[in-house]
Amino acid sequence: MTTPGTLYLVGVGPGDPELLTLKAARILGAADVIAYPVSNEDTTIALDIARPHLNPAAITETIHIPMTVKLPRGEVAPKAAIYDEAAARISAHLDAGRDVAYLCEGDPLFYGTAIYLLGDLRDSHRIVVVPGITSMTAAAAAIPFPLVARSETLTVLTGPLPDAVLRERMDETGSLAILKVGRHFDRIRDALAATGRVEHAWLVERATTSEQRISRVRDLPPGDKPYFSLILSYSGAEYWQ
Amino acid sequence: MTTPGTLYLVGVGPGDPELLTLKAARILGAADVIAYPVSNEDTTIALDIARPHLNPAAITETIHIPMTVKLPRGEVAPKAAIYDEAAARISAHLDAGRDVAYLCEGDPLFYGTAIYLLGDLRDSHRIVVVPGITSMTAAAAAIPFPLVARSETLTVLTGPLPDAVLRERMDETGSLAILKVGRHFDRIRDALAATGRVEHAWLVERATTSEQRISRVRDLPPGDKPYFSLILSYSGAEYWQ
Repeated sequence: MTTPGTLYLVGVGPGDPELLTLKAARILGAADVIAYPVSNEDTTIALDIARPHLNPAAITETIHIPMTVKLPRGEVAPKAAIYDEAAARISAHLDAGRDVAYLCEGDPLFYGTAIYLLGDLRDSHRIVVVPGITSMTAAAAAIPFPLVARSETLTVLTGPLPDAVLRERMDETGSLAILKVGRHFDRIRDALAATGRVEHAWLVERATTSEQRISRVRDLPPGDKPYFSLILSYSGAEYWQ
Repeated sequence: MTTPGTLYLVGVGPGDPELLTLKAARILGAADVIAYPVSNEDTTIALDIARPHLNPAAITETIHIPMTVKLPRGEVAPKAAIYDEAAARISAHLDAGRDVAYLCEGDPLFYGTAIYLLGDLRDSHRIVVVPGITSMTAAAAAIPFPLVARSETLTVLTGPLPDAVLRERMDETGSLAILKVGRHFDRIRDALAATGRVEHAWLVERATTSEQRISRVRDLPPGDKPYFSLILSYSGAEYWQ
């Protein structure tokens, strides 16, 4: 009987191919199958990051993930179907004894699509998660600016959250990171202004890539920002101007 | 005139020497000076993690950091003096044209001592921050368990926070990570119980090291835990039991 393969959920970091871990590079260089997400704009960011490190003889599996799917809470059938189909294809490789590496931008379990695959396959297959550098820590390093210090609180928010939630969380003391800024930038800036944080907030677009841009939020014109942009606001920022 | 050196604040990750990034390994292999923190128990965790990757010809600089210093808010003179002295020693190397790598457990700007050096030296010297894998993402990978998914909120707390703050933040919806558990474990467990989260919380001690231990919080006896332990509670945890 064939020994089943292992599924590696591999964080490839925020963009710079040198920000993969040694462990990720080793696993990607040896995997029998490389699976990676493709957005509905046909972008393959995780693959582009990992390309220098991949086993050139590996089989590739593309997993098309519509990033713009929007569903009322609870109604998840179409999205689940996408992952279930991907999980079935990955399963077939594992059952045939092939090790599969699924490429994840940033870290697999920090807002990652790998979470769905882990949910589908963790009871039936051996899964190893290789953590990756998050865009959040990479953005702080790029500025460079503390993310959070001492024993303080860090709250991580996302652009799609309702205004009331954004403002309530921002109003609490502590450091802030806001991910998935994209088309929510104007709402987020209003919330930062309403909570007295706009002076000490930074926007980092496409951290660690050749298109990285760092701006103070107060200096930016209104309008949409790239999907891969985030805002940081350190709680001790007044000492860092 | 000598060209001043660069200060690299290098994240060495949570414990497994294979969880350094390729960039960190490259920089540590070439640095003229390796500086690293030593706690008052004479432990050198960051050095132990990075040891396989260090330039064997590098000069070493030890920076003694009392981890138990406690001061009323605002009264920071003794602690600041420690970092000012360290910054002066590092400055002397940089001014002599030597590149210095300062080793940071986890990520330099996520609760890192490097934040103080960055504050002291950023106006006078060239500083490059190399992000590292945090204990938080490494612990989620070790379980494995989602840290945060979809567009939800993640709140990062620390053990030393007052009970009222812990409970208030835990009571809000979203995922939770609690760092610096150590001697605060019993207080934290009480707060998790009071906010209905104890059933879905995990404790990870010394993530990715040979001494890693993973437990459900509800199964643990009371009493202190290691300083390097953290608790995770995923907001969708009821679907993952």
